Amino acid sequence: MAKIPVGILGATGMVGQNYISLLNKHPWFEVRYLAASPRSAGKKYRDAVAGRWQLAEDYTPAVGEITVEDANDVSKAAAKRGDCAFVFSALDMGKDETRTLEEAYAAAGIPVISNASAHRWTADVPVLIAEINPHHADIIPAQRKARGWDRGFIAVKPNCSIQSYMTPVYALGKAGFPAERIIVSTLQAVSGAGYPGVPSLDMIDNVVPYIGGEEEKSEMEPLKIFGTIEDGVFKNAALPKISAHCNRVPVTDGHLACVSLEFGPKKPSPEEIRAIWEAFRGLPQELDLPTAPERPIIYREEQNRPQPRKDRDAGKAMAVVIGRLRPCNVFDIRFTALSHNTVRGAAGGGILNAELLKHKGYI
Amino acid sequence: MAKIPVGILGATGMVGQNYISLLNKHPWFEVRYLAASPRSAGKKYRDAVAGRWQLAEDYTPAVGEITVEDANDVSKAAAKRGDCAFVFSALDMGKDETRTLEEAYAAAGIPVISNASAHRWTADVPVLIAEINPHHADIIPAQRKARGWDRGFIAVKPNCSIQSYMTPVYALGKAGFPAERIIVSTLQAVSGAGYPGVPSLDMIDNVVPYIGGEEEKSEMEPLKIFGTIEDGVFKNAALPKISAHCNRVPVTDGHLACVSLEFGPKKPSPEEIRAIWEAFRGLPQELDLPTAPERPIIYREEQNRPQPRKDRDAGKAMAVVIGRLRPCNVFDIRFTALSHNTVRGAAGGGILNAELLKHKGYI
Amino acid sequence: MAKIPVGILGATGMVGQNYISLLNKHPWFEVRYLAASPRSAGKKYRDAVAGRWQLAEDYTPAVGEITVEDANDVSKAAAKRGDCAFVFSALDMGKDETRTLEEAYAAAGIPVISNASAHRWTADVPVLIAEINPHHADIIPAQRKARGWDRGFIAVKPNCSIQSYMTPVYALGKAGFPAERIIVSTLQAVSGAGYPGVPSLDMIDNVVPYIGGEEEKSEMEPLKIFGTIEDGVFKNAALPKISAHCNRVPVTDGHLACVSLEFGPKKPSPEEIRAIWEAFRGLPQELDLPTAPERPIIYREEQNRPQPRKDRDAGKAMAVVIGRLRPCNVFDIRFTALSHNTVRGAAGGGILNAELLKHKGYI
Amino acid sequence: MAKIPVGILGATGMVGQNYISLLNKHPWFEVRYLAASPRSAGKKYRDAVAGRWQLAEDYTPAVGEITVEDANDVSKAAAKRGDCAFVFSALDMGKDETRTLEEAYAAAGIPVISNASAHRWTADVPVLIAEINPHHADIIPAQRKARGWDRGFIAVKPNCSIQSYMTPVYALGKAGFPAERIIVSTLQAVSGAGYPGVPSLDMIDNVVPYIGGEEEKSEMEPLKIFGTIEDGVFKNAALPKISAHCNRVPVTDGHLACVSLEFGPKKPSPEEIRAIWEAFRGLPQELDLPTAPERPIIYREEQNRPQPRKDRDAGKAMAVVIGRLRPCNVFDIRFTALSHNTVRGAAGGGILNAELLKHKGYI
Repeated sequence: MAKIPVGILGATGMVGQNYISLLNKHPWFEVRYLAASPRSAGKKYRDAVAGRWQLAEDYTPAVGEITVEDANDVSKAAAKRGDCAFVFSALDMGKDETRTLEEAYAAAGIPVISNASAHRWTADVPVLIAEINPHHADIIPAQRKARGWDRGFIAVKPNCSIQSYMTPVYALGKAGFPAERIIVSTLQAVSGAGYPGVPSLDMIDNVVPYIGGEEEKSEMEPLKIFGTIEDGVFKNAALPKISAHCNRVPVTDGHLACVSLEFGPKKPSPEEIRAIWEAFRGLPQELDLPTAPERPIIYREEQNRPQPRKDRDAGKAMAVVIGRLRPCNVFDIRFTALSHNTVRGAAGGGILNAELLKHKGYI
Repeated sequence: MAKIPVGILGATGMVGQNYISLLNKHPWFEVRYLAASPRSAGKKYRDAVAGRWQLAEDYTPAVGEITVEDANDVSKAAAKRGDCAFVFSALDMGKDETRTLEEAYAAAGIPVISNASAHRWTADVPVLIAEINPHHADIIPAQRKARGWDRGFIAVKPNCSIQSYMTPVYALGKAGFPAERIIVSTLQAVSGAGYPGVPSLDMIDNVVPYIGGEEEKSEMEPLKIFGTIEDGVFKNAALPKISAHCNRVPVTDGHLACVSLEFGPKKPSPEEIRAIWEAFRGLPQELDLPTAPERPIIYREEQNRPQPRKDRDAGKAMAVVIGRLRPCNVFDIRFTALSHNTVRGAAGGGILNAELLKHKGYI
Repeated sequence: MAKIPVGILGATGMVGQNYISLLNKHPWFEVRYLAASPRSAGKKYRDAVAGRWQLAEDYTPAVGEITVEDANDVSKAAAKRGDCAFVFSALDMGKDETRTLEEAYAAAGIPVISNASAHRWTADVPVLIAEINPHHADIIPAQRKARGWDRGFIAVKPNCSIQSYMTPVYALGKAGFPAERIIVSTLQAVSGAGYPGVPSLDMIDNVVPYIGGEEEKSEMEPLKIFGTIEDGVFKNAALPKISAHCNRVPVTDGHLACVSLEFGPKKPSPEEIRAIWEAFRGLPQELDLPTAPERPIIYREEQNRPQPRKDRDAGKAMAVVIGRLRPCNVFDIRFTALSHNTVRGAAGGGILNAELLKHKGYI
Repeated sequence: MAKIPVGILGATGMVGQNYISLLNKHPWFEVRYLAASPRSAGKKYRDAVAGRWQLAEDYTPAVGEITVEDANDVSKAAAKRGDCAFVFSALDMGKDETRTLEEAYAAAGIPVISNASAHRWTADVPVLIAEINPHHADIIPAQRKARGWDRGFIAVKPNCSIQSYMTPVYALGKAGFPAERIIVSTLQAVSGAGYPGVPSLDMIDNVVPYIGGEEEKSEMEPLKIFGTIEDGVFKNAALPKISAHCNRVPVTDGHLACVSLEFGPKKPSPEEIRAIWEAFRGLPQELDLPTAPERPIIYREEQNRPQPRKDRDAGKAMAVVIGRLRPCNVFDIRFTALSHNTVRGAAGGGILNAELLKHKGYI
């Protein structure tokens, strides 16, 4: 089977680099179109990222030879449809600008699977975690119709900070134990801020107890993901109420979350919780999608795990790793959860969404 | 006025080193007696810590010349009362062993002001934070009587992990707004584990979401500190209920706490909270004790503070620095608090307690 | 073809863990025998390393089930020859003890391929870097004869600190440009000291300009590797003279070396040097040994490479990565070189030596 | 005595902040004039550095109230001579721009004591290390005359990377043992690159073996400092030849240097070297200048010192700390040296130069 040619918007940034690295050997998709800021446009990719490539695994020689286009020039992508059946958007510009540009790609018939936050609160745009709300993708026909798009659409993924606890919380809710209140503190990796991102003077012998906009996203996005589609738009869930403390710590990759959780009237036992997490499989697992982790939730018995450096790569860096499940002195339970923020929480999550959307026939 | 000669038990360890460094120029106390494990006994202090001294500020030449005694040999200290009017205990041995040994010093007429956890739950031993419960020191006559000690007594300080938020919580309660429930995540410095302590392989590109025994201490010790004396023993307070997540992060000094707090029925406004913290002064401030910070609680306006490296030394490393006061999505308020774990949370706190006990006439 | 069963001495330590991880899918060798200190003996491997396993990649379930033996008990290994055709020694005990124990294994008919430093200066024991002096293995018949061993022998690998520059220096010498004088400063990773190893208090906002014994090894071992066999014992080369400054830096894996080098009268041009390194292949490459990197020396053009985190995994973590070749203001040339200390410099290097010795028929 | 009012150009940057912090309690100088980029001009200093202040010690309230001027507007400074008897230049703009602007200040009658590199190779501008070449300041009359300046002049300090070994090398030369060849590797702190400076992604689990322009400066600037004045311009010394490898490591403050050194025909013994360093005092010590360290060179006996975090603050962060003196296998001796790059190597060094120039009557 011929691979589907894909484009990457924002190809030179940190997330763009992760997309390229993760797609190196993808069985369905092949990187053939790269776009970035006007500064990089016209250069070969190898020259555009010289001295800025951050990953241990290099891009392929073929990708290095691709000439980078100006991401603002949608007509270029439209003219090269043979290289660009859809795009992953890792755009890193202003919110309004991103929103407009992603819509222009969709209007030009190019589906946009985005990491950017610009469209997360657009009423008819799904925010997908493939194991949790794959049915939200089915708003796409309504989205297309309302906007007069034929092939194009926009689907996005949520903020990286919530990926480590949303899946375990969802699994419990699905099994009949919905969470009502969550207080969570995150210890987040610097790669979440891109490159150059966080200055080293802030991360040597230090942590920073603030990440702009992150707490608001962490508290609101889950409600859309747990929400329903009504009349072609999303309606938020009312629960769980979430309070987030987001901290930046000296870790390259891997966001850790310390979660205290209160259930509704029905309270599972620790054994039930462990069994629910152990057994949980989502649609990506059922379909055996290429980027899906075999087990979306991995529980570690050791009392000092999960740890970012040791656990972030579990399940091809796409699994959530949990540990330290114990009663909470104030709410019902406590646990610690980890996910890889630039794979599961960014490019890997986007690719898994694309695989899902391909399976569903939208790509 | 002649200085009071003091001894240090566990003088070669991390906390012992901090005592020595902080007492270098103390106006009331002078280090004259040093005791440690049998391994160090008989050596000059300079030789006993050769290659192990961890602090930027060196010990004085006079301290370097002191011959280290065996801490197990109480009779040595008793015989040298002229050099050892009381001791700071930074013993680092088994709990039972510590308990017994500290009692032996007290029985020998040598007051013990301890950093060790061994006696924190002994019913007639006060756990002091000088700004919060200085009146707890007044159990000492009952303690002496019950045990048949004349001059000796034991007073201890609580775990370093709670020092960053206990004072602000106490200040609010004192002003009429007691906390009922607290969920807190701490990001704790490695110096809390002593030297060699935490391996660097655990702290490079990593955090560890577990510190043995720390969460239990964090949840229980505040209840004794907020408790009352009844019939010569302490009775715990019932509130606040506390749930703690304790994490180790790659920071040398300074424990940071992310606090979500629920008040009782009476809820202060943000302005009231800020005013209460601003105005708060404890007995150490009223008495102008040498080690007391001028302002026990310092609020920073910047949204990305407090930070360990930048704020731990505020108020001679004895103040609590707070920032990010904001409404909590689940409880009433949220804030971030920091204190220096080896100064405020260990040796400095012990010295302040000694100053208080001196003022009260127990030393 | 049935795999050769191998044993690991010191299986629970850092280097032992690396051997197990790297042998997970080895095409020739299979881990079947594990030995460690008496403390671990009798436990299943999974229990023996519970809470101490340091690597991101787990051991296999089969390895987890192996019962650990006492490494001091050679008769156990001798009795289980079917599980232990030869051993990798990652023993971490005193030098004399190691020497004696490794000899006992060899005497019992079990070849010993060792990471320990104990036998590096034994006159008839080869110190092998497979790309440089594979012919030194041919001392084994003389070694066996002199000691009255039939199947057993001892072969070792050099210190990890020299692996990053020995191969490039050798390649130049082989091409007719031998080095006469080298001044090198190394920036070495903490994994080189094992676990717990270097305390985090020494590695946060700090470097340590000293590693016990490392400079002496760095200066002497190359002379044996470049030496010759005469009358069944090794005779050291006279050159190059090496002066080493060894520093510990806050890096998990990957030793970096800053090299200034003076040639003899014949001086290659930069272009010649680059061409020599580019073209260099050793016997492991000719034989296509499973663990051999395709290119033993990789040159990076970027002026800020090699970097430990980005380059240590190049060539299956078995390649040397070089950058910054430039004229030296004092000697002839300068460059920076990197190798992965626990793979190329320890377990991976040992495995490659075993593959070489298997090829040569000694195993 | 009334304090001399001083201005700071580039007051909001990292070096500017250090000047302000170090001058908080200076006995001779008082910060009264602050200038920075147009972006900061017109703001109170407290607002201009809100969220950017990097130091543990805060600026004084009085400094916080100063209105920042545009550094490009020399007439402002000239008009406020009463607040700006001379300036410390911590300008961080292009080289040509800096050169021109510093000359404009000097022409306007305002002496410029600069940290910038722009004028280091100007033939009549002295590059001062107060302990080494204070006599170079005496070119100032010639400089003034040649340029037609009456009060103004320009004096600069060298790159921070050489400060750790220049003083010990000078002390040996002065005692009759000049160095002829030096090969040095530096492990440099991130504060040397300012703020935001080095990205944290480059400094977590990593080092970077390259700092743009640093090696050239390290090799050339010593020759001017050791040079002579002939006909009103500087003539470089011919020796020592220096080869530098400059590396960036995850340390906040403190540059460490690993030095291999070859003397001329006269070779001192280790005892002589130690005695020379111990006895060395420069003009700042003789004059007892306020910022001068009591002992410019401090030797530590411990084999694992100097270390950045433990030794950078020695001698008010103005001393050079040395350790590990030992024979070199290739040259004559080896040692490790450390100095605080933002104090001794930047603002503190500038202040000491100002004190010297004040003493000499040029200010």
